[in-house]
Amino acid sequence: MPYQLYYWPHIPGRGEFVRLALEAAGADYVDIGRLPEDDGGGRPGVARLLTEPMAGRPPFAPPILRSGELYVSQTANILQYLGPRLGIVPDDEASRLWAHQLQLTMADWLVEIHDTHHPIAKSSYYEQQKDEALRRAADFLQLRLPKYLGYFERLLAACSTAEPCLVGARWSYPDLSLFHMVEGLRYAFPRAMLGLAPSHRRVLALRDRVAAIPLVAAYLASPRRMAFNDKGVFRHFSELDP
Amino acid sequence: MPYQLYYWPHIPGRGEFVRLALEAAGADYVDIGRLPEDDGGGRPGVARLLTEPMAGRPPFAPPILRSGELYVSQTANILQYLGPRLGIVPDDEASRLWAHQLQLTMADWLVEIHDTHHPIAKSSYYEQQKDEALRRAADFLQLRLPKYLGYFERLLAACSTAEPCLVGARWSYPDLSLFHMVEGLRYAFPRAMLGLAPSHRRVLALRDRVAAIPLVAAYLASPRRMAFNDKGVFRHFSELDP
Repeated sequence: MPYQLYYWPHIPGRGEFVRLALEAAGADYVDIGRLPEDDGGGRPGVARLLTEPMAGRPPFAPPILRSGELYVSQTANILQYLGPRLGIVPDDEASRLWAHQLQLTMADWLVEIHDTHHPIAKSSYYEQQKDEALRRAADFLQLRLPKYLGYFERLLAACSTAEPCLVGARWSYPDLSLFHMVEGLRYAFPRAMLGLAPSHRRVLALRDRVAAIPLVAAYLASPRRMAFNDKGVFRHFSELDP
Repeated sequence: MPYQLYYWPHIPGRGEFVRLALEAAGADYVDIGRLPEDDGGGRPGVARLLTEPMAGRPPFAPPILRSGELYVSQTANILQYLGPRLGIVPDDEASRLWAHQLQLTMADWLVEIHDTHHPIAKSSYYEQQKDEALRRAADFLQLRLPKYLGYFERLLAACSTAEPCLVGARWSYPDLSLFHMVEGLRYAFPRAMLGLAPSHRRVLALRDRVAAIPLVAAYLASPRRMAFNDKGVFRHFSELDP
């Protein structure tokens, strides 16, 4: 039985981190939200799952991965579950903990990115919190973005291999996620990312190597890869990236 | 060799979730940050670790658990690591994934709680973002707090046992964490929590049962349990809890 990914179909969002892992590993999966509604997909297909009992363990929110009778949610938890099954994390426990730790650090980073455009309330429009967003984004670009990017740059700088990656000697799922972080940040904050490029060459080189993994390249060129838009975690407002 | 917890000594913060697990299980551990500075503790003792190589895998931020030669960070990751070793999570993989998923949901909730008093910038004082905090806290109390509390209340309502808990038939580490969430929320938002009490009786009953676990009760009565204060994740400002 193929894996089933349940995530909202109108944004890449958090589901994209799971999709990248499944695609990069060539896994057999069904992206329920992107099936036609007549085939049980779309938003109704995702919403319907949320009303089901799910073995008495209903998640708080999508993304949700169904694997047989198991339902796993929280992006980092899903990746941790898939990692060894798809062979995209080293075998030893220390490496798995480290990979998960990096993924959780990216999860924290992602919330901060989301909150640059929604610092006051998820339930309100950007336009209703634009002044606050200007202040929050300025702080993010000045302090937080360099802090996170610098952390990953230093990790890669400490690798002795010719093509450094985050865990072990070849790419693993946190590299895929870091690729997507860079893609999203370049979409949301193109000017800031251009300015930071010279001092974060290793992160950007890793992004390029991930994009060149054959199954990733094929995925990125396919209609399965969604474009960023004005609804997701990563949104572009030129006034937030002056 | 005892576990070593590295966390800032002036706040309960995220370290408290780890401390609760270690205490509830009667684990042998050293709370490095709370040792005297002359004994290698205090803030300098924690800060010093951050300059060490840590097997080439430096964490982004405390809390950090040292277990032999292994350094684990990210609160939920630490708890996931400790869970089976301390016998505070069921053995089967599905239960462990579920426990971790709940812990990650609480981690998301915790960020939202922090940001009620710091919606714009961690680097600025509350007074510099008080107007924004008033708006963010109002949204949190109206929409987000009931959503999270309601989720956990429904989980407990679905248990068939006389003393429902979040994972399996007896308490596990997510119950300890939910206890601490309730304690922190009652400190930060006493009025809101009083208003929500009648509709969240199961969550509050679980809080009481956790507080009565003998090792937890002993810990709470000891000087090792830190009081909430005006520096941590949970802060009380009466204007945010009208």
